[in-house]
Amino acid sequence: MTTIETFPNPNPNREYSISHVNPEFTSVCPKTGLPDFATITVTYIPNQTCIELKSLKYYYLDFRNKGIFFEAVTNQILDDLVAVSKPKWMEVVAEFNTRGGINSIITVEHFEEEK
Amino acid sequence: MTTIETFPNPNPNREYSISHVNPEFTSVCPKTGLPDFATITVTYIPNQTCIELKSLKYYYLDFRNKGIFFEAVTNQILDDLVAVSKPKWMEVVAEFNTRGGINSIITVEHFEEEK
Amino acid sequence: MTTIETFPNPNPNREYSISHVNPEFTSVCPKTGLPDFATITVTYIPNQTCIELKSLKYYYLDFRNKGIFFEAVTNQILDDLVAVSKPKWMEVVAEFNTRGGINSIITVEHFEEEK
Amino acid sequence: MTTIETFPNPNPNREYSISHVNPEFTSVCPKTGLPDFATITVTYIPNQTCIELKSLKYYYLDFRNKGIFFEAVTNQILDDLVAVSKPKWMEVVAEFNTRGGINSIITVEHFEEEK
Amino acid sequence: MTTIETFPNPNPNREYSISHVNPEFTSVCPKTGLPDFATITVTYIPNQTCIELKSLKYYYLDFRNKGIFFEAVTNQILDDLVAVSKPKWMEVVAEFNTRGGINSIITVEHFEEEK
Amino acid sequence: MTTIETFPNPNPNREYSISHVNPEFTSVCPKTGLPDFATITVTYIPNQTCIELKSLKYYYLDFRNKGIFFEAVTNQILDDLVAVSKPKWMEVVAEFNTRGGINSIITVEHFEEEK
Amino acid sequence: MTTIETFPNPNPNREYSISHVNPEFTSVCPKTGLPDFATITVTYIPNQTCIELKSLKYYYLDFRNKGIFFEAVTNQILDDLVAVSKPKWMEVVAEFNTRGGINSIITVEHFEEEK
Amino acid sequence: MTTIETFPNPNPNREYSISHVNPEFTSVCPKTGLPDFATITVTYIPNQTCIELKSLKYYYLDFRNKGIFFEAVTNQILDDLVAVSKPKWMEVVAEFNTRGGINSIITVEHFEEEK
Amino acid sequence: MTTIETFPNPNPNREYSISHVNPEFTSVCPKTGLPDFATITVTYIPNQTCIELKSLKYYYLDFRNKGIFFEAVTNQILDDLVAVSKPKWMEVVAEFNTRGGINSIITVEHFEEEK
Amino acid sequence: MTTIETFPNPNPNREYSISHVNPEFTSVCPKTGLPDFATITVTYIPNQTCIELKSLKYYYLDFRNKGIFFEAVTNQILDDLVAVSKPKWMEVVAEFNTRGGINSIITVEHFEEEK
Repeated sequence: MTTIETFPNPNPNREYSISHVNPEFTSVCPKTGLPDFATITVTYIPNQTCIELKSLKYYYLDFRNKGIFFEAVTNQILDDLVAVSKPKWMEVVAEFNTRGGINSIITVEHFEEEK
Repeated sequence: MTTIETFPNPNPNREYSISHVNPEFTSVCPKTGLPDFATITVTYIPNQTCIELKSLKYYYLDFRNKGIFFEAVTNQILDDLVAVSKPKWMEVVAEFNTRGGINSIITVEHFEEEK
Repeated sequence: MTTIETFPNPNPNREYSISHVNPEFTSVCPKTGLPDFATITVTYIPNQTCIELKSLKYYYLDFRNKGIFFEAVTNQILDDLVAVSKPKWMEVVAEFNTRGGINSIITVEHFEEEK
Repeated sequence: MTTIETFPNPNPNREYSISHVNPEFTSVCPKTGLPDFATITVTYIPNQTCIELKSLKYYYLDFRNKGIFFEAVTNQILDDLVAVSKPKWMEVVAEFNTRGGINSIITVEHFEEEK
Repeated sequence: MTTIETFPNPNPNREYSISHVNPEFTSVCPKTGLPDFATITVTYIPNQTCIELKSLKYYYLDFRNKGIFFEAVTNQILDDLVAVSKPKWMEVVAEFNTRGGINSIITVEHFEEEK
Repeated sequence: MTTIETFPNPNPNREYSISHVNPEFTSVCPKTGLPDFATITVTYIPNQTCIELKSLKYYYLDFRNKGIFFEAVTNQILDDLVAVSKPKWMEVVAEFNTRGGINSIITVEHFEEEK
Repeated sequence: MTTIETFPNPNPNREYSISHVNPEFTSVCPKTGLPDFATITVTYIPNQTCIELKSLKYYYLDFRNKGIFFEAVTNQILDDLVAVSKPKWMEVVAEFNTRGGINSIITVEHFEEEK
Repeated sequence: MTTIETFPNPNPNREYSISHVNPEFTSVCPKTGLPDFATITVTYIPNQTCIELKSLKYYYLDFRNKGIFFEAVTNQILDDLVAVSKPKWMEVVAEFNTRGGINSIITVEHFEEEK
Repeated sequence: MTTIETFPNPNPNREYSISHVNPEFTSVCPKTGLPDFATITVTYIPNQTCIELKSLKYYYLDFRNKGIFFEAVTNQILDDLVAVSKPKWMEVVAEFNTRGGINSIITVEHFEEEK
Repeated sequence: MTTIETFPNPNPNREYSISHVNPEFTSVCPKTGLPDFATITVTYIPNQTCIELKSLKYYYLDFRNKGIFFEAVTNQILDDLVAVSKPKWMEVVAEFNTRGGINSIITVEHFEEEK
């Protein structure tokens, strides 16, 4: 499994947001074995660390031949990115291409726990 | 009548939203017998179950030769999907193609009852 | 004058919205005698009755050769539709085509009076 | 200077909004003497009077050969239109064409003073 | 380093907003030495001074051959513009072109400190 | 019936083309009595005379309450404009709005007869 | 089977073209029993007769529940319309919605036989 | 009158084309005194000289307050640019904004005379 | 390797064209091991056989994890489809997504040999 | 100066075309010292060699800080790419961003000399 790398947030005292939009995400449907395609948009407010872009690209490649459902893959990306970067807030939106004439969009959000 | 199937929500502890957009919905006008066409967008926050996509497609096919008015079909889709999936929140938006030079959009919403 | 017909709201217990978009509205400028063109969008939350689509189309046709100003026609459509359908809420947006290089948009709203 | 004409608001008891969009505004840069081009959008909630469209067009023409900065022209249009029509609320948005590779948008707002 | 010039706000008593959109920003990736391209949008509510457009253009040119990361450059533009113009509020949005199949958008905001 | 006016071609020795696009044409369906809407595009190579734009606008207004079929109206516009302006070549394209879910486009052409 | 009606060409001495665009065509896949959706564009140069628009709409409705392949349905529409209207030239373009991630476009043409 | 400047064609032995698109052209209607707006596109194959861009911009400014008809201004721009640059081929396309609900496009062409 | 299936052309006596557009093609760059994404459009005039759509989809899947250059993959698809369907004419257009800031489009064509 | 690399054409017996579109080209205006931005599209029919994409990207970077006019840079790119790849045909289209309110497009072509 690819390690998502991080680097120190250059402005940890300011709340600001970062979005990374990947229109080339692809995984495999566990039922049919056929590929699924999606645009994945990650938006977050960094805490002490930012997500390194190149390692994010390699992380997405791990799904290329993996069988996983729409709802599960979106939640897993959020869980993995939260674990590694501990953001103040993060949202993952996955817009899947038409399957059987229907488009699907999954939106998941994480809020930093109260301390 | 097609049974809408469900599967267990993989993340029942997180509030997140799922949208399914179907631009190929068609039913029949009960007055004229002519077909109506619409884009149906279902958006919901799942509770314990998610709606299975393939059975949703077959459910929509049941309307193909059924005579039913715009307002009624939109409300019925919401009622049927709520009954089977018991979501925390659900919205159905039906955008009907031009009839007599006029487009129509019906928007219905369901909120989970307080316990 | 055309009578706008209504039919009983199939779901009077649920608050939901209905939009009818007519991009083919035309009336006559009372000053110049030249035609005006607009897209009229009516959106409302029905109470006990819904507006019948075909009679709405014929109602709009009554304006085809009538001289009336932008602000007046938009308010009149709202008044006429409210009188006949007694909605919980209604909005009329009229987007007029370019005249003298300027586009105009009039937006009027009605709220049901407190009982 | 052109006089902006007004006419009595046909529905002074109802709060509603009116927008006039002019994509053909042009003035002159006081620094370079070169023309500037903008789309000016005026939106307001009328009080007792509405702005007459034709006189608005002629009012805009007064700027055609006048040297004036972006920020100043947008504020002046708001001041002039407020003075003449005394609206409940008014907003002027000026979207200027690219100059030196940069587009500029100025947004100014007026609220009726408390009585 | 280019000095960002300012001029006195022509309407310091009115809160209004100014946006400058530059689709031709380019800097250099400090890791690869390859150029990055972005659209930079600065929006602010001026206090006593406005940012002079031509000096802003020259300020952006200083980044043309400078190695700097996405997150850092967006924060630095905000810091530099705030220092010179002391606005009531300012936002900088940087939308970077596709790198490795991924687009990135950084959004930073400044609020005037309470006095 | 409105007279289409002409004026002398300022460059009769050069072959060049003129297009006039009218997106606000409306006539009446002789079968149903309901209005039809179309965009009419006239393109021609002038001979000795050009068509005057304002009289063309008034000519189109004559169709506003006239019952006439798609194919007939397009041919008649061509015949009328050719009779009055005797162009080297003329084309009329009429793009009618959706009726019964179907858009129609009629294209007619005239070539100057050999002398 | 619906009869496609025709009416006499109002200008049989002029070669001109007529297009009818139907974005609401639907038939059934004979393999899967699932519906197919297409935009059908018929363009022709009429001879002595034109195709009547309303009967064309009803003719298309005959395919609503009929199992037929993409290539076959496009050829059959051309054959049926040629048989009934005997045009100088006709083209049928069928643009089918995505199936299995692939869009298909079939283009067939008919030329009048030499006499 | 502004002089259109030229510079020597850097590749006189190769036939290639140059287009200059100006979406900010404005002149005055000689009938009404109101401004007209157009996008002017000049395309040419240079001979020995190319048109200098900055002087072209100033040349266009000469029309800002000049009363001239659509057909005449398009032909004059072609004549002026041909006189000064003697191209192998040149085309001027002028797309005028809506006046009285109608857009106009004038297209004129020049071919080098046989030697 | 997947076998591309064919079926008998239902109208072998008529020359007509068939296009299949696949926006979800993906292969692997042999140099970097990173995935490439493309839209592949196959257009052909069938002879005795047509290409079966489902087997075409599976044929494309064979490239999912295959290392192959842009120019080579486009030529190979043409060669494979020509070998199996022996069309009168075929064209393959491959539009590759941005790599290093550059989009690439490869277009290859096959003509039936003279007999 | 970067060397543009080539690789052997995998199908030298087939005439086919290759396009590379670079929307991130930038050079410097020799008059003002300000940057110019363009989209450069190279299209060619290869002979024995194809242009290697990565070296093309580096070749374009050489212009980043070079002062050169629109017409000259477009011709030079064609000359350099022809010299290195000796194509059967090549076209370079350079679409420059707005300068002084005017967009410019330069199109140059090369044909292989007869042998």
